Amino acid sequence: MVGFWFLLFFGIRPIFSLMEADLKKSLLSPVVYDPSVRPRINASHMVHVQLDIQVVYILGLEDREGKFSQALNLILTWTDEFLRWNTSEYDDVETFVTEPASIWTPDVTVYGKMDTNQGVDLSLVRVQSDGKVTTKFVGILSTHCIMNAAHFPFDYQLCYFYVGSDVYVTSEVVMETNVMEIYESAKINPSWDLIFVRFVNSTPGVCGVEYCLYRKSLYLGVLYMVPTSMHAILILMTYVVPSEVGERISFGMSLFLSFMVFLLQLNGDLPEISTSIPALEIFFMLHMSSGVVALVVAATTAYVTLNTTQTVSLGSVKDVSTVTSLNKKPLRSLCRCRCLRSASLLNRTGFVVSFILILAANFVMLNATIVSDGCRIKD
Amino acid sequence: MVGFWFLLFFGIRPIFSLMEADLKKSLLSPVVYDPSVRPRINASHMVHVQLDIQVVYILGLEDREGKFSQALNLILTWTDEFLRWNTSEYDDVETFVTEPASIWTPDVTVYGKMDTNQGVDLSLVRVQSDGKVTTKFVGILSTHCIMNAAHFPFDYQLCYFYVGSDVYVTSEVVMETNVMEIYESAKINPSWDLIFVRFVNSTPGVCGVEYCLYRKSLYLGVLYMVPTSMHAILILMTYVVPSEVGERISFGMSLFLSFMVFLLQLNGDLPEISTSIPALEIFFMLHMSSGVVALVVAATTAYVTLNTTQTVSLGSVKDVSTVTSLNKKPLRSLCRCRCLRSASLLNRTGFVVSFILILAANFVMLNATIVSDGCRIKD
Amino acid sequence: MVGFWFLLFFGIRPIFSLMEADLKKSLLSPVVYDPSVRPRINASHMVHVQLDIQVVYILGLEDREGKFSQALNLILTWTDEFLRWNTSEYDDVETFVTEPASIWTPDVTVYGKMDTNQGVDLSLVRVQSDGKVTTKFVGILSTHCIMNAAHFPFDYQLCYFYVGSDVYVTSEVVMETNVMEIYESAKINPSWDLIFVRFVNSTPGVCGVEYCLYRKSLYLGVLYMVPTSMHAILILMTYVVPSEVGERISFGMSLFLSFMVFLLQLNGDLPEISTSIPALEIFFMLHMSSGVVALVVAATTAYVTLNTTQTVSLGSVKDVSTVTSLNKKPLRSLCRCRCLRSASLLNRTGFVVSFILILAANFVMLNATIVSDGCRIKD
Amino acid sequence: MVGFWFLLFFGIRPIFSLMEADLKKSLLSPVVYDPSVRPRINASHMVHVQLDIQVVYILGLEDREGKFSQALNLILTWTDEFLRWNTSEYDDVETFVTEPASIWTPDVTVYGKMDTNQGVDLSLVRVQSDGKVTTKFVGILSTHCIMNAAHFPFDYQLCYFYVGSDVYVTSEVVMETNVMEIYESAKINPSWDLIFVRFVNSTPGVCGVEYCLYRKSLYLGVLYMVPTSMHAILILMTYVVPSEVGERISFGMSLFLSFMVFLLQLNGDLPEISTSIPALEIFFMLHMSSGVVALVVAATTAYVTLNTTQTVSLGSVKDVSTVTSLNKKPLRSLCRCRCLRSASLLNRTGFVVSFILILAANFVMLNATIVSDGCRIKD
Amino acid sequence: MVGFWFLLFFGIRPIFSLMEADLKKSLLSPVVYDPSVRPRINASHMVHVQLDIQVVYILGLEDREGKFSQALNLILTWTDEFLRWNTSEYDDVETFVTEPASIWTPDVTVYGKMDTNQGVDLSLVRVQSDGKVTTKFVGILSTHCIMNAAHFPFDYQLCYFYVGSDVYVTSEVVMETNVMEIYESAKINPSWDLIFVRFVNSTPGVCGVEYCLYRKSLYLGVLYMVPTSMHAILILMTYVVPSEVGERISFGMSLFLSFMVFLLQLNGDLPEISTSIPALEIFFMLHMSSGVVALVVAATTAYVTLNTTQTVSLGSVKDVSTVTSLNKKPLRSLCRCRCLRSASLLNRTGFVVSFILILAANFVMLNATIVSDGCRIKD
Repeated sequence: MVGFWFLLFFGIRPIFSLMEADLKKSLLSPVVYDPSVRPRINASHMVHVQLDIQVVYILGLEDREGKFSQALNLILTWTDEFLRWNTSEYDDVETFVTEPASIWTPDVTVYGKMDTNQGVDLSLVRVQSDGKVTTKFVGILSTHCIMNAAHFPFDYQLCYFYVGSDVYVTSEVVMETNVMEIYESAKINPSWDLIFVRFVNSTPGVCGVEYCLYRKSLYLGVLYMVPTSMHAILILMTYVVPSEVGERISFGMSLFLSFMVFLLQLNGDLPEISTSIPALEIFFMLHMSSGVVALVVAATTAYVTLNTTQTVSLGSVKDVSTVTSLNKKPLRSLCRCRCLRSASLLNRTGFVVSFILILAANFVMLNATIVSDGCRIKD
Repeated sequence: MVGFWFLLFFGIRPIFSLMEADLKKSLLSPVVYDPSVRPRINASHMVHVQLDIQVVYILGLEDREGKFSQALNLILTWTDEFLRWNTSEYDDVETFVTEPASIWTPDVTVYGKMDTNQGVDLSLVRVQSDGKVTTKFVGILSTHCIMNAAHFPFDYQLCYFYVGSDVYVTSEVVMETNVMEIYESAKINPSWDLIFVRFVNSTPGVCGVEYCLYRKSLYLGVLYMVPTSMHAILILMTYVVPSEVGERISFGMSLFLSFMVFLLQLNGDLPEISTSIPALEIFFMLHMSSGVVALVVAATTAYVTLNTTQTVSLGSVKDVSTVTSLNKKPLRSLCRCRCLRSASLLNRTGFVVSFILILAANFVMLNATIVSDGCRIKD
Repeated sequence: MVGFWFLLFFGIRPIFSLMEADLKKSLLSPVVYDPSVRPRINASHMVHVQLDIQVVYILGLEDREGKFSQALNLILTWTDEFLRWNTSEYDDVETFVTEPASIWTPDVTVYGKMDTNQGVDLSLVRVQSDGKVTTKFVGILSTHCIMNAAHFPFDYQLCYFYVGSDVYVTSEVVMETNVMEIYESAKINPSWDLIFVRFVNSTPGVCGVEYCLYRKSLYLGVLYMVPTSMHAILILMTYVVPSEVGERISFGMSLFLSFMVFLLQLNGDLPEISTSIPALEIFFMLHMSSGVVALVVAATTAYVTLNTTQTVSLGSVKDVSTVTSLNKKPLRSLCRCRCLRSASLLNRTGFVVSFILILAANFVMLNATIVSDGCRIKD
Repeated sequence: MVGFWFLLFFGIRPIFSLMEADLKKSLLSPVVYDPSVRPRINASHMVHVQLDIQVVYILGLEDREGKFSQALNLILTWTDEFLRWNTSEYDDVETFVTEPASIWTPDVTVYGKMDTNQGVDLSLVRVQSDGKVTTKFVGILSTHCIMNAAHFPFDYQLCYFYVGSDVYVTSEVVMETNVMEIYESAKINPSWDLIFVRFVNSTPGVCGVEYCLYRKSLYLGVLYMVPTSMHAILILMTYVVPSEVGERISFGMSLFLSFMVFLLQLNGDLPEISTSIPALEIFFMLHMSSGVVALVVAATTAYVTLNTTQTVSLGSVKDVSTVTSLNKKPLRSLCRCRCLRSASLLNRTGFVVSFILILAANFVMLNATIVSDGCRIKD
Repeated sequence: MVGFWFLLFFGIRPIFSLMEADLKKSLLSPVVYDPSVRPRINASHMVHVQLDIQVVYILGLEDREGKFSQALNLILTWTDEFLRWNTSEYDDVETFVTEPASIWTPDVTVYGKMDTNQGVDLSLVRVQSDGKVTTKFVGILSTHCIMNAAHFPFDYQLCYFYVGSDVYVTSEVVMETNVMEIYESAKINPSWDLIFVRFVNSTPGVCGVEYCLYRKSLYLGVLYMVPTSMHAILILMTYVVPSEVGERISFGMSLFLSFMVFLLQLNGDLPEISTSIPALEIFFMLHMSSGVVALVVAATTAYVTLNTTQTVSLGSVKDVSTVTSLNKKPLRSLCRCRCLRSASLLNRTGFVVSFILILAANFVMLNATIVSDGCRIKD
């Protein structure tokens, strides 16, 4: 730079005639431009920064961390009153490109960004002859999103972040939402449906962006619904399995063990959120309870029938030894009948309870799919 | 910069009249300002740095690493005696914004920050005409937090970090706590309740910040309480299951296997902390012991009754072959009765022990919820 | 730099005669070269950037994140009209190497790169006397790839990314595909076969690169096909296991439990994609259904035969006590036969259903290997 | 800088009188100070760098990677012969603070640091009027530590790293250990007891720091000892379970299955180190062997007794058909007795072997706690 | 710098006499030295860069990513013809240390480095009076390594990377291998034995470094061999377990379940490589097949014997009712004998098949340990 002025001073004309370089030198020279000063001739005028958003693709929503990741373009446009020129003077150069550090740029802060700083890196800026400056943030952005697990895996999630200037007050720099564009690729995330993206304006001068996502539940659905339905069938089967040889208890117990293995798997897939119990968890727990009821009924029935048959068999043994006691038989038969009837009653009651629990579980799931109507739940 | 003085020297008046740029040039010129020098005209005066804290949201507390993560704003305010100007001389410019590197900033060190360096990145600074300088750290901060797992999952955790200047002594730079603000979003973490955040002043010139967090235990509660209760029911059921056909042992063994599968799951959720045994672990282990007692009782009962019935059946076989030995029967019956009685006694004792163990487990859990009263435990 | 002009000014000849340094000084001096200006004397001429791609090796395709990682060389070549010299004037120096920051370089943007910014770091540039400039990106590149799990684990995946200039319009800078080279090491990834890499030109001025990958399924094949085949054998074995002593139900239940453990493993290997159900999942679920059918049949058969034998045995007991009721026997035998026949029928039907389900499962798998013919599915 | 000399040249006196800035300008001016030159007037004199260590807290020791992480302060002190001044000349300024890049600093290299470079970032330096310079590294340091798993989970681990200058030879820069301080917070790691930290001087000019850590085994102890003890009880119970109805084999098999589930858990907690077998693994494997012995004995006993009873029952069936063969009975009884006696012997031997294996397992564990006496094992 | 010339110009002699600083100023002044120019007076001469390698320690080889990590020192030595001085003129200063950015350094590229760029950070350089320049890369280096899993866990792995200059052609800069040193600490990795490290020279001017690693198999050996041997014993035990009461099928089924749990564990430890089936997987699968054979035999035997005994018992029932049909008995006995004989034959055949499968499994494992002789397999 110094050399340039020297040359000028000593009358040496530089050998180049590149108008764009000339233009940049005259506009951005430290003598005339200070990148840390707001580009307003009248300092009381505010800078309006237009914010366009292009949602490129959704990466996902990690429930453990509450982290919503997406690829997006933030396009920022404002007017720099010091970067205006007469295009006729500069060989019709109407626009140039430069480093963001060489001119004033707003301190774009994404409130909610999950990083040690909440600023964003801006790409190269393009300046037009009327002072219009355009720059972009292009890349992956991860923001904080507090999830609501109540209707999991049929849940809508509302994520939002705010874009604003952190150091400038609203009388100095104002962010204004402008255009919102959603790429086709943003709609084909394998786990989430993007219901809508919209601008919200809560605080003046700050742009809010709101995403409504709906979980695609095919994966979890197949992985949990199909085996759970099988479990439901087997729970009801428990009442069919003959209880005499103790096979029913063994059957019920194996089913319970199978539930525990299934729970191990569920634990890895459930969102670790303690604000509400996910529908899937209730669904699972109700099925498991249904299984436990079947098992308890099986054990109790076995107890009742055993006691009955024991007394009977003891009786029949006695019958063999002492034929004289044949007159006690009607009494015992009566008892036995009553016991068996009570066992049968227990059995039927158990079946009904198990069935109701399974119905309730399915109702909870159905409810989750119906009730969670859009992102209204968080409004 | 050099060019500027040249121009001045050769009488060329710069074409701009931007007062803010003028002001910065005159204030921050290397001739008059050295960013590495403490901003006090009298070097013996100390710099008071006011520290405001805004807790934005809590990210979580990872027990494996002892890492407490949050999004917060640290707002720092101090007076720079070299950055004062007469606003009337500069077109009423009362404030300007500049890079933190261009002026003196305190070396804010977060003692306990989990990073390879413990400094923080400051955002743009705002300077006011009376020399008041404001800057911020805005972002995610992860600090070390030693956890106490004794009452897990009903545990309070006390995390703290200190903010101070590392290189300056207290006669040079002093950090002073000022305002504490907790955002609404900090209170809705899905896993932790923020009980309080407060300033503590242990060391002069260093600001301590203390967080008291209470674990939201709904997730772990449902995932562990419900199946454990089912296990408890099934343990007590063991005593009901008929032991004759060996079904009871099989039942108890399957229950034990189920406990082992459950333990596999528990292992993934327990904090790996060896200073105390978590309440949940004691709860689980007591239930498991209860199950083992039931199983041992079942096996012993089976042994006792089998030996009895074996001798009896052998006797009865002999009865068939030799009817003459009928006179030995009372003796055997006596033995059999005693044995069965002892088996029955064993059974009842086992039931009581199992029940007491389950009660004890639930008492431990209840105790954990009651005793862990706030963050006093670490005071 | 300044010193150089001073020396020149005061007539001091530098002690060195290094032509390359001289050349760089004269070409890249800030007086004559501005790295932020497009290297065209006539600003209306566009810059053609040739893009060569060398695929070095494939790192993998992570389905959870939809991330395709590879090591590749992007070789960029263009002509800089300001970097031309007469080699005879400079001791036959025909080429030199310099830092990319010292000359103009296109802002190479990889659309789809999974990073907070989508630019790439360029290595040292080589400049030739005719103005041809060459530079490279050499390293690991991770791009977004939306997977299709329908034929998993016999799936083809089509991944693509675009390389272009973000800030320059197509009348300024145009990227043109040139040479594509695939290293031998790119073909020996342990998990993926690289079917083809090709350039696609959808948008003018932007280069698309498309990768077709075919999953090597040996690992998953052996891990899932062999045990599932064993399960299939055991399911069919269920119909052979004697059902009298309730052993068949126990067998079927254990098999079901084994399926649940297997499902736990499958859950960790399946791609978490909700757009389609993977062939492997259908394969598994059909086998599991087959097992459940076998189990239900076993339980029902047991129920039927038990009821029959119970009445029969009750009858036979009665036979012992009352020999007079022998005339009722044909009736009972008839009933028993019918029942047993229905049980047998149930058994055979169950066997056929189970077998058909296993066949269907294998057909789904076979179909997945045949139907997924190349990367056409996404065209 | 240039401006300053200009002003001086043209007689303009700067408006400030800040002595510290003056001092820095005169001391650190590029004319008189070169930060890349060792601060010795006589180049043959060496620079003694004093190393103080403050261990702040221990983060952990990850066995998979062999990575030891801690927060520590490395305090470096040396004398810079060019940074001395007469305090009376500079308004009694006795000390100043500056950037580490502006003066010479030793290239502190932590040999064993797990990073792509082994240097450390130094914080701001403080210079005193006698030339004493102090700086710090404050933060998390991860170093390589090769573990010895032999006595796991009662193992001592000796970790060490070396601090030295990489580019300077010992005749130029020498690191000397000075003060070692261990913070209270370093002693309360939830997984490791810090037995001692000490300086070791193996190589002249390089400081070695050695950490002896003892694993807190409460977590792993409770998680493995309690269930294993339960398993031990159940193994011994196997011999009590009646073997007649095949219940004993089923019991033993379920116990084996339980061991396999437990092994799955153990696999996740064991250090993946192939230099020695961890005590916990031997402990577990011996218990498992004990269980297998019990199971094999159960199966063999069942085989023996079945064969016996079968021949007997066949005999008794024949008895019914042919009463004449009653004279063969004593023979069979003899055989039966012998068989039963051998079965009983087998049973007792098995019990003793199982018991000895359990004792051996506990002895191995006890041995691990006793033998691993401190960090001597690696000396 | 400018100030220096000013002072010189105006006759002011700097107050210092530090020869090293003088030397650096005269050698590295931008007037005489350009760090981007190859240090050859005659541009046609090539620069020979000597490469010494010190392998400090091996961190590991991650099969999922194909990533080989180690700590190593790359020591680079070359001659810079512009950095020569007469030591007598500079107070016998024979060597100095400077920043790598201040002189020319080769663009050391590690082909195969797993990072977004493949360059390495060089530490401080040491320059000697004869122009010899030495610098180092000291730190962790992760390179790509394609694994061969065929003999896992007794596998040798051959990893290699190339070091060269990317932008300079072989007529400009040539890398030459020199000294190879392996530290003692490189030989004590807990998972890998370092068999050899050697230089390979495939391409001229590029240095190849080849590592041969042998997996230490103690950890995996104990974790898989011991339980698998137990399984083998139990498989053979299946043939001993009495099949009458259906206990054998239950035993075999539990063993199968145990295999499935074991498979779950194996899945986490196997390398996910689809180029060949690991020996351990074949070993496991053969054992599992052996178990399935035993189970199928058990079920079939049960079926055969049941059918036989059923007909017999039915026969015997008929015997009781109709004593006249006693003459059919020999026929039935014959059938029964034949059936039992065929069952026995089946049993023996099954035993032999199971035993052969187990032998085959062990042979595969033995073969893996013997055949995988060194790193020849990849030559």
